[in-house]
Amino acid sequence: MASSKQATQQSADALWKDFSHPLTSAQDYINSLRGRRLNVFFRGEPVEEPVDDPVIFPSINAMAETYRLACEQQDLASVPVGNTGRTSRFLHVPVTPADLAAKHEMQRELGRRTGTCFQRCVGLDAISACHSITFDTDQTCGTSYHPRFLAFLTRAQAANVVIGGAMTDPKGDRSRAPHQQTDPDMFLHVVRREEDGIYVSGAKMHQTGAINSHWLLVMPTMRLTEADRDWAVVGAVRADSPGLTYILGRQTNDTRSVDGGSLDAGNAGFAGQEALIVFDRVFIPHEHVFMDGEWQMASSLVERFTTYHRSSYVCKTGLGDVLIGAAAEAASQNGVENASHIRDRLVEMTHLNETVYSSCVAGAYRALKAPSGAVYNDPMLSNVAKHNVTRFPFEIARLAQDIAGGLVATMPSERDLLNNVTGPLIRKFLKGRDGVDTVDRMRILRLIENMTIGRNAVGYLTESLHGAGSPQAQRVQIARAMEIESKRAFARNLAGVRPKAEE
Amino acid sequence: MASSKQATQQSADALWKDFSHPLTSAQDYINSLRGRRLNVFFRGEPVEEPVDDPVIFPSINAMAETYRLACEQQDLASVPVGNTGRTSRFLHVPVTPADLAAKHEMQRELGRRTGTCFQRCVGLDAISACHSITFDTDQTCGTSYHPRFLAFLTRAQAANVVIGGAMTDPKGDRSRAPHQQTDPDMFLHVVRREEDGIYVSGAKMHQTGAINSHWLLVMPTMRLTEADRDWAVVGAVRADSPGLTYILGRQTNDTRSVDGGSLDAGNAGFAGQEALIVFDRVFIPHEHVFMDGEWQMASSLVERFTTYHRSSYVCKTGLGDVLIGAAAEAASQNGVENASHIRDRLVEMTHLNETVYSSCVAGAYRALKAPSGAVYNDPMLSNVAKHNVTRFPFEIARLAQDIAGGLVATMPSERDLLNNVTGPLIRKFLKGRDGVDTVDRMRILRLIENMTIGRNAVGYLTESLHGAGSPQAQRVQIARAMEIESKRAFARNLAGVRPKAEE
Amino acid sequence: MASSKQATQQSADALWKDFSHPLTSAQDYINSLRGRRLNVFFRGEPVEEPVDDPVIFPSINAMAETYRLACEQQDLASVPVGNTGRTSRFLHVPVTPADLAAKHEMQRELGRRTGTCFQRCVGLDAISACHSITFDTDQTCGTSYHPRFLAFLTRAQAANVVIGGAMTDPKGDRSRAPHQQTDPDMFLHVVRREEDGIYVSGAKMHQTGAINSHWLLVMPTMRLTEADRDWAVVGAVRADSPGLTYILGRQTNDTRSVDGGSLDAGNAGFAGQEALIVFDRVFIPHEHVFMDGEWQMASSLVERFTTYHRSSYVCKTGLGDVLIGAAAEAASQNGVENASHIRDRLVEMTHLNETVYSSCVAGAYRALKAPSGAVYNDPMLSNVAKHNVTRFPFEIARLAQDIAGGLVATMPSERDLLNNVTGPLIRKFLKGRDGVDTVDRMRILRLIENMTIGRNAVGYLTESLHGAGSPQAQRVQIARAMEIESKRAFARNLAGVRPKAEE
Amino acid sequence: MASSKQATQQSADALWKDFSHPLTSAQDYINSLRGRRLNVFFRGEPVEEPVDDPVIFPSINAMAETYRLACEQQDLASVPVGNTGRTSRFLHVPVTPADLAAKHEMQRELGRRTGTCFQRCVGLDAISACHSITFDTDQTCGTSYHPRFLAFLTRAQAANVVIGGAMTDPKGDRSRAPHQQTDPDMFLHVVRREEDGIYVSGAKMHQTGAINSHWLLVMPTMRLTEADRDWAVVGAVRADSPGLTYILGRQTNDTRSVDGGSLDAGNAGFAGQEALIVFDRVFIPHEHVFMDGEWQMASSLVERFTTYHRSSYVCKTGLGDVLIGAAAEAASQNGVENASHIRDRLVEMTHLNETVYSSCVAGAYRALKAPSGAVYNDPMLSNVAKHNVTRFPFEIARLAQDIAGGLVATMPSERDLLNNVTGPLIRKFLKGRDGVDTVDRMRILRLIENMTIGRNAVGYLTESLHGAGSPQAQRVQIARAMEIESKRAFARNLAGVRPKAEE
Repeated sequence: MASSKQATQQSADALWKDFSHPLTSAQDYINSLRGRRLNVFFRGEPVEEPVDDPVIFPSINAMAETYRLACEQQDLASVPVGNTGRTSRFLHVPVTPADLAAKHEMQRELGRRTGTCFQRCVGLDAISACHSITFDTDQTCGTSYHPRFLAFLTRAQAANVVIGGAMTDPKGDRSRAPHQQTDPDMFLHVVRREEDGIYVSGAKMHQTGAINSHWLLVMPTMRLTEADRDWAVVGAVRADSPGLTYILGRQTNDTRSVDGGSLDAGNAGFAGQEALIVFDRVFIPHEHVFMDGEWQMASSLVERFTTYHRSSYVCKTGLGDVLIGAAAEAASQNGVENASHIRDRLVEMTHLNETVYSSCVAGAYRALKAPSGAVYNDPMLSNVAKHNVTRFPFEIARLAQDIAGGLVATMPSERDLLNNVTGPLIRKFLKGRDGVDTVDRMRILRLIENMTIGRNAVGYLTESLHGAGSPQAQRVQIARAMEIESKRAFARNLAGVRPKAEE
Repeated sequence: MASSKQATQQSADALWKDFSHPLTSAQDYINSLRGRRLNVFFRGEPVEEPVDDPVIFPSINAMAETYRLACEQQDLASVPVGNTGRTSRFLHVPVTPADLAAKHEMQRELGRRTGTCFQRCVGLDAISACHSITFDTDQTCGTSYHPRFLAFLTRAQAANVVIGGAMTDPKGDRSRAPHQQTDPDMFLHVVRREEDGIYVSGAKMHQTGAINSHWLLVMPTMRLTEADRDWAVVGAVRADSPGLTYILGRQTNDTRSVDGGSLDAGNAGFAGQEALIVFDRVFIPHEHVFMDGEWQMASSLVERFTTYHRSSYVCKTGLGDVLIGAAAEAASQNGVENASHIRDRLVEMTHLNETVYSSCVAGAYRALKAPSGAVYNDPMLSNVAKHNVTRFPFEIARLAQDIAGGLVATMPSERDLLNNVTGPLIRKFLKGRDGVDTVDRMRILRLIENMTIGRNAVGYLTESLHGAGSPQAQRVQIARAMEIESKRAFARNLAGVRPKAEE
Repeated sequence: MASSKQATQQSADALWKDFSHPLTSAQDYINSLRGRRLNVFFRGEPVEEPVDDPVIFPSINAMAETYRLACEQQDLASVPVGNTGRTSRFLHVPVTPADLAAKHEMQRELGRRTGTCFQRCVGLDAISACHSITFDTDQTCGTSYHPRFLAFLTRAQAANVVIGGAMTDPKGDRSRAPHQQTDPDMFLHVVRREEDGIYVSGAKMHQTGAINSHWLLVMPTMRLTEADRDWAVVGAVRADSPGLTYILGRQTNDTRSVDGGSLDAGNAGFAGQEALIVFDRVFIPHEHVFMDGEWQMASSLVERFTTYHRSSYVCKTGLGDVLIGAAAEAASQNGVENASHIRDRLVEMTHLNETVYSSCVAGAYRALKAPSGAVYNDPMLSNVAKHNVTRFPFEIARLAQDIAGGLVATMPSERDLLNNVTGPLIRKFLKGRDGVDTVDRMRILRLIENMTIGRNAVGYLTESLHGAGSPQAQRVQIARAMEIESKRAFARNLAGVRPKAEE
Repeated sequence: MASSKQATQQSADALWKDFSHPLTSAQDYINSLRGRRLNVFFRGEPVEEPVDDPVIFPSINAMAETYRLACEQQDLASVPVGNTGRTSRFLHVPVTPADLAAKHEMQRELGRRTGTCFQRCVGLDAISACHSITFDTDQTCGTSYHPRFLAFLTRAQAANVVIGGAMTDPKGDRSRAPHQQTDPDMFLHVVRREEDGIYVSGAKMHQTGAINSHWLLVMPTMRLTEADRDWAVVGAVRADSPGLTYILGRQTNDTRSVDGGSLDAGNAGFAGQEALIVFDRVFIPHEHVFMDGEWQMASSLVERFTTYHRSSYVCKTGLGDVLIGAAAEAASQNGVENASHIRDRLVEMTHLNETVYSSCVAGAYRALKAPSGAVYNDPMLSNVAKHNVTRFPFEIARLAQDIAGGLVATMPSERDLLNNVTGPLIRKFLKGRDGVDTVDRMRILRLIENMTIGRNAVGYLTESLHGAGSPQAQRVQIARAMEIESKRAFARNLAGVRPKAEE
């Protein structure tokens, strides 16, 4: 890393000092993000205060919806702890299949309420994975990470903060292990160890909700070898730690948020967020280090995390609900909602959406229990769920556009509506059936644009493909889990093939 | 009906007399079918003793496998009752989501063990539906069918008999209600009521496992109107009741079972069975009548039954396991199991198979509870499950044939193997990789033929389309369950469409 | 219409005066668009000079590419006329199957060169349809539109102008015919007839290349009845005629063209264009009127036009070539181009792309000849071609994103590259395999974004669905052309069903 | 080979002696097959006279239909030669794109007339491939095979015989070249060379129409190396040559042809045929040898043949026409032909069927010309065509079964119709709408069974997958033809990636 500045060492206690009051509302949460002086860049400029940036704010607001839901539907979005308290479901490691199932209901509901990625699942899945893997590590390696991790988690629950999970490294030359890379920063690694903690450098890519988080839980991204010890690191860092730089990704149509009005954005209230996070010698006190050198546990951690996270894509069925609803609304505005071919497409969209949902829910109820007491989704079903997510939203999007009609992509802007020459012409010629306000019609079409070729297509389509692992990653896992030998035995039995001595 | 013979009236007690000893093994079951003098026709001839008919026996053997499984895997195929007893899971009305889930595991396992339709699910789903609907009927209509039904069920459990469910009527002119048909027999109906019971006439089509059952539970096939009172009838009749005629359907390759040897059949041990059952004034004593005239309950019964039964198609994932295994075995015999394109197809087959499984399992855990205490699968997910069954087995079959190679359809017969001119030529030229017996290779290919264009393609493909309702039937149900109004509200909310006063 | 200004009457000769010099180069064409004082609105503001508008210019440049190609590949993009001259293939009515096939090759090549909709096909298909229908009208109705039309066409060819076709009306209440609408302007119609010509009012929606055209050929959009006489109008108007107002549609990411640099746009050079065109008493001299009241010919014209135009979607296979190439390039930049799963996806994309191409080409060679001498694509194959266009580009787009990786949607902006803090970080962490410039990698990913969820997704996806008729429109035409009675006869013959006396 | 008998040497003139009278009718053809004393085995027994075997005859009859068509539609099924004569189109090497297109029309029509594989295309594609490859071989190797081949072809045309093409070898261990196999017979090879000719041994698998041919044209099955010289052999042998043994494959439901009546067969008149042909030192006089040792030409021959043959699968669109018609007929018999979901499925079936057709036709018109003067289909489009054939018939079959209803697989036999107990019951309960004869309904359903899970499913489904190369073979060819480098250049151009010096 070119930079030479060094992160200040701060103790864990000091780091938690700012979080002494629990965040109990969306407004609390939003306020908590102010004044952090993060090193954030967007479109080539530093961002002074992300909360006040109109392009960034919708992504903060999507995260804030997780707090709103907790207020409005306590049972869905929080769980009881102790005698009287409750903690956010986003900070609760599932210990029963019902916990997992409830998590998925919450995720779907937030999908419906935001129509985008609300960004808080990565952290939940990261803490869930760390819960069992720190336990296993202690058993295997004689370490004591698990109690440390529980202490961290307890503080996070008390403060009700947002934890982001950070896994994906840049990877450099994909044919080489971390220690073989020309540039060691291609994977996040420990660059220095001191008495009170460690320093890490590198980067994490595609980080969902990065600057909307209070803490980042960094984890390795793949199986490691013994020579990769320095890359075997898990730890929690404050999002405003010295040494961190955030570069926000550009999203389709992001600048429509600064284009005046709320119509052209399609979904003015909510959006996702992904950033490249660069770590330049970021300090982590030992209390927040949950792996340091136990390379042999890296693959288990990755697999456990992805097992959780692939099922978290159930949120896309909430987005699917929105898009199905938008298509139905558009059809109604056109007066064709009862045409058989329209009805048939809505049924198909629903069928695909519920098929995705099925595998998430089935995998939750077929959960496995880890020695730590945490449960996790059935790995086969979780991969099957995510694999369907890499396919069906694209077809649902296609069908939504089919129902919406071509206007979804040829419609004038909101400003044209306001112009006194063009406004009346648009109102005259873009009318739907009687009783439908042209502007309402445009709003629904813009929402469909938003989710299919607009800002939230990033979340509904691209992220559905690549989040939690690209399609091929699921196929590899399905191949591992498919128990082909026992299936071959079923076939031989029915075919009358004699068992072989050697088999 | 042309026939003029009249069924003897027998009391319920008399009817149960023959079932005083519970059937505890597959052999017991098979023995119980002997000597019943059923009026059965197959290929134009009366069948003296179905058990001894080599074409029919594999279907009996498939049913018998449900008994074998109960012996071998008690927990999977039976449930505890009372202090020490157990009853077959096929005679147990599910009362918890776990019951439904266990049922689906049993069904998948039987699919793996038989590679065909083992025929006992219709009856299970029929008694499950009758459990709650008789209860509801009593509440609604002031009748007392539920206790009657429980008494019947208790006897059936004690005897461990096979109950077949009989729903599908011929229907005649589909634009007319039962009472409007020219021929009243197009739907099964009450033709006479006497002091001790009723007489019914009509027919039931496509009856799975008809002559392999001890009892048949007849039910209406669709929504009825008040004028259809006489067609609103549910009752249990012994399969050997006077007045019943069975005409077995021809299946693809059925006669390969009498063609010598076991190879050409592909799956010599197991097959399905479907029959047209004609009812000519069949007597049902009142104790076995569970609906008589309550036309307003018919649609609920049909919907409840199909909700159960559509999820029972989880059995096809067991058949899928067999076919995936057969394809993998064929690839191995050809020495290409590790080719990436082969591996990729096996993954795809597995992905599709587990997708089907997911909706069945998810629907089981999301079960709803009826007032009677019975639970039933979530209706949306059950329909989604079955709808995927109408698609994916066809693609799995295609991929299996792809992996198998063209020999699956051009292979000589077993008799050619035995011929001393052709046998050695076949062994020489149809060899797979070293170490693979040519005959084993042929057996696996015949199994793939059996399931894709052979006898069990009837069960794996055609029945997957039409059993428990054709694809369009599921689409109608999905449309009903898709809650389009709430989805539209999600969309309007995000699009910023103002709520309307009138809405 | 609210406006009260009235169009000046100009004779045909006067209207052609400005086009005395043929446009022989892209630069000629671009120059010809300057200074026309069109009444154009974009994003709420009048556009002084579209040629100088950086958001609009890429769409002009795409049209200009048709002129460039004619210079660079004369045989492909023009046809010989007379002894020595040539005319643009975009102004040549096909008279042989080879003409149609050559047209499709030109369209595919222009798709490859622009990666977007180059907008000149609508006009070509409009003049092609008018060629035969004016002839048929004269035969049927005793009119003399065909010679008039030929005179117009000859002038257009001599000047090598761009003719836009304008068909889609707003339609209002879809359950009503034009004459039944509350607002007669819902379909373009004759509002006044004078000695020298007619006046038309109404609007045309989704008009491809509207302000990039010199002339607009208006046509009815659907079958008309006798009472719709005034709506049965075909005529050519100059794009700068008094009474015309253009409202350009907003496209996804349109403003990236004014966001600095060329990288974020993905395809900085080229884009599509669609506009709402409002007609307020626009004058058409009789020489340019090709239908006026012959309502019975409207449906033939629409069907002829869509038959041509559905096959013109072969251009999307040129876009497919670009996207396949971009995906292959991205894979190469990542060093994974030889991975079997990558290779397999490229093959699948190619297979789908060539399948689309097949139906266009087959339909060209199976062309039918109209009495006027013009040939047109086989209607069944043309509809089949377009119907595949409504499906396969979506799957190709999905596969392209799959290969590209998640970075396609999370990448920083070009400005971040230029910033001296973030630029080096991006170059360090977004590197592909050795030897690949990070900026080149970003360029390719932005191109994939552009075509899948960016500006040209409008053309590649939405327009593929709805241009030339939505999917259901093709299904209706396929149903009409499928000759189901003769197919039933083939089946009856093989099944041994006796022919019936009455059939 | 175990056998020690040796084939008699016969000169070419002697071999043609029996074919001095041209076969001008189907009856001529059938008569010509009698009394040949072929060494044929089926189901473990020698077949005395195949023409008289009721199971085999439908396959002969399908081949005979090619003669019938030539009589009934001369232009479609034959081509003019010389001044007055005509030759069968099955013996005419295409020399213009129109020839190829006409061939495809003939193939589709024969598919419609037989509903199965009529078996004569392999030979046509074999002679077409040999035409150009013998020419190329002579150019490359200084041989003189081409004139020899033309002489052979002239005689075949004069006699109007059936030539079968024989390519697929058993292949043994697929990781080894022919000369590396433990058993040299795994690929057909020259075992002895004498003054007048050569002797070949080995086998050819899956041979379509084997015993219905008069001549067999053997060809290598894959790329060969120099060490494989003895396996580089092309030659024509009479189907009744000494040393040949035929073992016919069992087909699904083959024995329904001997089960009485014509109903259960579904398509009683026509079926396909595939056999294993064993060659035990079969003599070929030099006049009939068209390659002997020119190993370097083998891959070209294979590729040329498959290019032709993959497009010949256009015949399946004729079968598709039958199945679409059968489904429509079944819907009509049920009175639901106008239901929107039925109509929609018929449209989908048609769309898929015409999509397949498109690539065949497009590839014909885009034909390439070989130096010999023969033309052949565009290789990319031919592979694309066949690749769609490996997919769409399965979906068409699924939709046909969907429309047909479950009865397609549960229906009683024809003999049950004749039985005086069951016959009336079947007629009563299996009635369709008024006016439809129950037997006609059963006939149509049996035809659908025949094509989807019955005897001709072999041809419509399995052969569609594997004939002319399995799906993966097409993918390999598509990969070779996809010109990925030029596509990458299109993408780089639009993305603004600078051309590299080294590229």
